[in-house]
Amino acid sequence: MTYSKFEDDAAVVAFVRTHTDQFSDDDVLLVEEIGDGNINYIYRVKGEDSSVVVKQALPYIRIIGTDWPLSIDRIRIEAQVLQTEAMWAPKFVPKMYAFSAEESAFVMEDIGDHENLRFAFIERHPLPLLGEHLGRFLAETLFHTSDFYLDYESKKRAVANYINPGLCKITEDLFFWDPYCDHERNSINPLVRPAAEALWNDKPLKIAVTILKRQFMNCPEALIHGDLHAGSVFVRADSTKVIDPEFAFYGPMAFDIGSVIGNLLLDFAGQFGLPGSVQEKEDYQAFLLGEVVTCWTVFKTRFLALVTEKSDEPTMSDSDYANAFMVQLWHETVGFAGTEVIRRTIGLAHIADIDSIEDIELRAKSERWALALGREMILNRDVISSPEALNAVALALPY
Amino acid sequence: MTYSKFEDDAAVVAFVRTHTDQFSDDDVLLVEEIGDGNINYIYRVKGEDSSVVVKQALPYIRIIGTDWPLSIDRIRIEAQVLQTEAMWAPKFVPKMYAFSAEESAFVMEDIGDHENLRFAFIERHPLPLLGEHLGRFLAETLFHTSDFYLDYESKKRAVANYINPGLCKITEDLFFWDPYCDHERNSINPLVRPAAEALWNDKPLKIAVTILKRQFMNCPEALIHGDLHAGSVFVRADSTKVIDPEFAFYGPMAFDIGSVIGNLLLDFAGQFGLPGSVQEKEDYQAFLLGEVVTCWTVFKTRFLALVTEKSDEPTMSDSDYANAFMVQLWHETVGFAGTEVIRRTIGLAHIADIDSIEDIELRAKSERWALALGREMILNRDVISSPEALNAVALALPY
Repeated sequence: MTYSKFEDDAAVVAFVRTHTDQFSDDDVLLVEEIGDGNINYIYRVKGEDSSVVVKQALPYIRIIGTDWPLSIDRIRIEAQVLQTEAMWAPKFVPKMYAFSAEESAFVMEDIGDHENLRFAFIERHPLPLLGEHLGRFLAETLFHTSDFYLDYESKKRAVANYINPGLCKITEDLFFWDPYCDHERNSINPLVRPAAEALWNDKPLKIAVTILKRQFMNCPEALIHGDLHAGSVFVRADSTKVIDPEFAFYGPMAFDIGSVIGNLLLDFAGQFGLPGSVQEKEDYQAFLLGEVVTCWTVFKTRFLALVTEKSDEPTMSDSDYANAFMVQLWHETVGFAGTEVIRRTIGLAHIADIDSIEDIELRAKSERWALALGREMILNRDVISSPEALNAVALALPY
Repeated sequence: MTYSKFEDDAAVVAFVRTHTDQFSDDDVLLVEEIGDGNINYIYRVKGEDSSVVVKQALPYIRIIGTDWPLSIDRIRIEAQVLQTEAMWAPKFVPKMYAFSAEESAFVMEDIGDHENLRFAFIERHPLPLLGEHLGRFLAETLFHTSDFYLDYESKKRAVANYINPGLCKITEDLFFWDPYCDHERNSINPLVRPAAEALWNDKPLKIAVTILKRQFMNCPEALIHGDLHAGSVFVRADSTKVIDPEFAFYGPMAFDIGSVIGNLLLDFAGQFGLPGSVQEKEDYQAFLLGEVVTCWTVFKTRFLALVTEKSDEPTMSDSDYANAFMVQLWHETVGFAGTEVIRRTIGLAHIADIDSIEDIELRAKSERWALALGREMILNRDVISSPEALNAVALALPY
């Protein structure tokens, strides 16, 4: 099968009309290309009263072209994951209306009334339910796709179904390799280069990161989102939606939870240098640390409740075991969160929370702070015993 | 497709002649059913100068019949694993001549000049190369099927190819569940029942075993044999062959290594009560402990050499990382070895090393000793720092 981009707006409209009944026949539909779209094509199709979003994947990375091939299977995986997430956490994902392998595209709910969490962070929007929503999303999706819930055969078939080598490889490189050596893919503020070089010579850190890398590659404990940074989350004050699970595969739960916590702490680092009064910054930083606690606490409480209510696995459903599991999971979470903090600071893909700090000196201060925090999280992941202890580490770290 | 047993000897002969050229046309072939064959059918086909073995699987467990279905896919897995093992450790597996999915059967080298390791142990045969051979077999097969050697995509495709739910489920139950509760499948010497009951009430032990179970289910780090007890090993003084990898899947390396070490220690337990002089027993027990050290040392040395020689994975090939990996692997090995020791003592499948002790009191003494050792190994797996330390634990444990 050869895959090609929708030829024109009419083709996008035809795709939506063929596969869904979201619009009446006499509705005039307008097509608009949206999204930052580095990898895929995303369209909004708008009728008089409603709209949908179409996402199409091609067998290469959009901004690079056919020189960087990427398996088309990722769109099948994304569509299936959105459906699985919708089964267990319907409030927190866009509805999936239709998927077609032939066009390697799907139609989903338009969540355009939400804003990207990255920019909500930068503009210090109040998000009183963020940690609660993400904790709940994580608990529902991770529990219901793990051995705590699935029978032995369904789980193993699911592991095989979600093998996603190309996308995993991107993470294996960008999280666990590039930032720890002088890699050409890295993007490093020249003022921060000495701090980066110190990491490249930090042998205990590099070994710890390789242990985490190996765990990323060898721990299919749940169907994880795999790319749960702030850019994959859309928010309103009363609603949270998680999108873009094309990196999903069976991996360590701690990677998803760590991505969320890492992004809260990355925005904390950015706040130091973003515009605003000291009071505004400190207030928002306090909010961010509060969400670290809330996210983990809601996750843990809900996950343990699900174990009690729904797990009939005879050994793992034991509450003492489940509690021991949570202790271990927290420590792993701290480690993975630390890798997210570091790779967003000196790796290929930065974040606007820090990159939008215009003064290069101020930006370097946030970046050095983030590197120091990430390093401490990775090396001391087995010592940092709770979200409160993690927050204390962040607060104690000199800016 | 429906699968049926070879109708008669002529059908077995026809299968061999169709799929191999091991015999000339005028060779008169005799067929003999061999093996303990609880699950599959095994035949020796003998010509004038040579012989081969045919193994056939049916979609249920042979001794129980169609009431206990078992996926036929296990014979495909076994044939593929034997071929993979032959690629990396040809000295230590029987040659595979042909596999046919249609008959769900394969033809392999006859290793009838070797004896089963279980009985060699019981009869105290000298096996000067046993630990060295098994350590080497483990290093070659585990290294070459892991992320240390395979590229990211081949490894992940292999994980999917060797999904083996039915056989894994047997291990999940028999190793990690049955022995830790009053399960109907257990087989318990009445004199040992109080000791078994003590395990069922040992909460820290049960949690530790569940942690190991979860690791068994969630750690596809290499293509493991999955059933590497003494009954799967055939020996001569100068040769060692590992057979029957139908339980193989991508799992934790420590499970295979632990199975080998567990079986050395189980025979140690049996030696107390088997016939013979105290000197004979103690000499053989000393030999067994020596092989524990040799097996691990040869494994580790060879694995690390392979990492240096053949791994081009940029992070895991670092020798400091590889050494840290070995430390962790040893501790996991002690834990899995402990579960093998316990499940062979009070679970469904016992071993002749202990069960053939006729005096029920004497047998109970060996069994209680084994239970105490297994428990200590599982609970103290992170403390027992080396094979020598493990041997010291065994020697200090009162009989």
